[in-house]
Amino acid sequence: MGLHEQIEALAQVDSEHPGGGLVREVYTPEYGEAVRFVSDRMREAGLEVREDSVGNLFGLWPGVSPELPRVLTGSHFDTTLNAGKYDGVLGVLGAIEAIRQLKADGFSPARSIEVVGFAGEEPRFGSGCIGSRAMAGTLSRSDLDRMADRNGITVAQAMRTSGLDPGRLGEARIDPATIAAQVELHIEQGAVLEHEGIRVGVVERIAAPHDLRVVITGVARHSGSTPMGLRRDALTGASEVVLEVERLARESPSGSTVGTVGVLHVAPGAVNVIPGEVVLEIDIRDSDLAARTAVVEATLAKLDSLAVERSLSVEVATITQDTPAECDPRIVGAVRAACEAIGTPYLTMTSGAYHDSMVLAGAGVPIGMIFVPSRDGISHHPDEFTAPDELDLGVAVLAGALRRLAV
Amino acid sequence: MGLHEQIEALAQVDSEHPGGGLVREVYTPEYGEAVRFVSDRMREAGLEVREDSVGNLFGLWPGVSPELPRVLTGSHFDTTLNAGKYDGVLGVLGAIEAIRQLKADGFSPARSIEVVGFAGEEPRFGSGCIGSRAMAGTLSRSDLDRMADRNGITVAQAMRTSGLDPGRLGEARIDPATIAAQVELHIEQGAVLEHEGIRVGVVERIAAPHDLRVVITGVARHSGSTPMGLRRDALTGASEVVLEVERLARESPSGSTVGTVGVLHVAPGAVNVIPGEVVLEIDIRDSDLAARTAVVEATLAKLDSLAVERSLSVEVATITQDTPAECDPRIVGAVRAACEAIGTPYLTMTSGAYHDSMVLAGAGVPIGMIFVPSRDGISHHPDEFTAPDELDLGVAVLAGALRRLAV
Repeated sequence: MGLHEQIEALAQVDSEHPGGGLVREVYTPEYGEAVRFVSDRMREAGLEVREDSVGNLFGLWPGVSPELPRVLTGSHFDTTLNAGKYDGVLGVLGAIEAIRQLKADGFSPARSIEVVGFAGEEPRFGSGCIGSRAMAGTLSRSDLDRMADRNGITVAQAMRTSGLDPGRLGEARIDPATIAAQVELHIEQGAVLEHEGIRVGVVERIAAPHDLRVVITGVARHSGSTPMGLRRDALTGASEVVLEVERLARESPSGSTVGTVGVLHVAPGAVNVIPGEVVLEIDIRDSDLAARTAVVEATLAKLDSLAVERSLSVEVATITQDTPAECDPRIVGAVRAACEAIGTPYLTMTSGAYHDSMVLAGAGVPIGMIFVPSRDGISHHPDEFTAPDELDLGVAVLAGALRRLAV
Repeated sequence: MGLHEQIEALAQVDSEHPGGGLVREVYTPEYGEAVRFVSDRMREAGLEVREDSVGNLFGLWPGVSPELPRVLTGSHFDTTLNAGKYDGVLGVLGAIEAIRQLKADGFSPARSIEVVGFAGEEPRFGSGCIGSRAMAGTLSRSDLDRMADRNGITVAQAMRTSGLDPGRLGEARIDPATIAAQVELHIEQGAVLEHEGIRVGVVERIAAPHDLRVVITGVARHSGSTPMGLRRDALTGASEVVLEVERLARESPSGSTVGTVGVLHVAPGAVNVIPGEVVLEIDIRDSDLAARTAVVEATLAKLDSLAVERSLSVEVATITQDTPAECDPRIVGAVRAACEAIGTPYLTMTSGAYHDSMVLAGAGVPIGMIFVPSRDGISHHPDEFTAPDELDLGVAVLAGALRRLAV
């Protein structure tokens, strides 16, 4: 079964769902089935399979000098709701395929190369990267009881249903000194490569989000009988915020800041009632932390002035504040060299989406990422698509990079 | 049982609900119970009770010359979800109380006076005024099968569960020539009286809404990996519309236009996804039809330019387009004379909310309305409140007006 067939087969391993897209959330029976599927592929490739205490799945190709820090390569194979086939999956199955090719070429690595399938990258429990955060040591036992999914099931409860013991969380922590590199092959999840007409992206840095949850409270009144001058409309205030976040991101001097309001709920939500409350969630990202901070602070200043000018009450909370990651120059160099050896043009770029690699970078692991195009920039949707030859090209670049890093 | 006790007692007649406010929707068992409660109060006041084919409830006080066009006075006693005690109810129970006072004073009307409780003023079925529209002849048999509530129950189905035959809709239609006046006592549902420190409003005209439903479609993409320049964000576009509607209403030369976006849904609605679709409902009202039309047209022009400037797709549908109503000068004069006889100051005003009286005015019935204050302008909410002495004052003004109109 080749890579393309494996991707198709794994796309059949999901829960029953009406939407047409994949649903394969971590610590569910269908995720367990996917663990068995990927384990089988690892064994077929001659890898030594193990699972750690939080469900990260590993497949080891021992090197000639196994005492050297090893090279890690992988991504995740859980999905969001109504997802596509490629997000995460390419980085796991593609890594196994890269090792098959290296073996077929007769390559013998000095360092061990280990494929990893990180558990729970997608935010089933509100925020994601469960497995990589456990490896990085940034997840506590109490987090497992606090973080819950939309049905109120905590991480700890979900782990137990998968036969994992939350009390053994600490055993998943790695010593960064034992890892020479983590290389992740991933679909771009954006339209930049397609827009530029280039099929490989060499990632230099990973942008990280600062997310705010804002509650704007005005006064809900009858829309017919309340003159314009007597209103405290939460939605007109919120609309100013939406446009200000867009303006601030567009005008950010880094040139790489993005700002989005993706969540906006209006209450009470009737055509004849002035909105009394709006809840919005703002996502501001950049690989340039100073530029991101400046946009966040200008957004907070806008909220302050809004409260005064429109007599609204405004509450703000930070819900996510991750640190951008720089890729390791040696790994970036190995990926570039692999592209040049193949003769494929590449685009040096920033990852706007975050990945498990970013979490490991935070723990001091040297990282690198390889992107292949996402048609129309679509991701987290059944229409997610990367052409077969682009999948193969990504694997070839990964194999070339591993060959250079494992010596 | 006095008026205040009756209002309290009727507030106990509602469905079980968790929110704390009243829920008494038309054609439900609790509405049937309310019909019996109001019928009993009518009979206690010596009125002849009847119900028409759509469930409008009438209580007749025959005049000395019953062949003359009669004087109608009333409102409704169904409620929205999570409602207060006074909206509509005051105009029905207060009308019965006004008649009791006229009888106690020994007044003998030349014209018959008839109290009416209109069925289904609140928009259980998407739009409201079922009973008054049936009386005006502007509701068709097919409307009863088309209009459905949030559970998909049509008007026709709901009528049958209340023992009413939708096939007899036409029997509810009235001949406007048989009605000399319709006078409606109502809470203001706004804060203008309170703001001005005046306890009685004499309504000269009723503003009517033009409501638009707008679907703005952009492209849902990952908020991290899509640069600002490659976005087609439906929510930033929608935010421009929200602020433009506010600006247009504020600057409308009539001085009485109001514009509100009360409904705004964002899809897919995740913090890390650029909104791909926003549905908004816009309510634009004025008693000045030309001014309202100008704001609606400027809003449509804004939507057109938005579609071009932001590469968004925009669909617009009119969901309500009612005609503003002028109150009858003779009835307005009778209400003013009643205020002056009592010695209470009054404010001549426009009703921003629409009422069953507006529907009857459209059919050629001469109408008038009397407002009493709503504390903080609150309505359609459990905190809706009008002080007992203001309720009594409204009834006294209504009694005075009926005395002048029924001669």
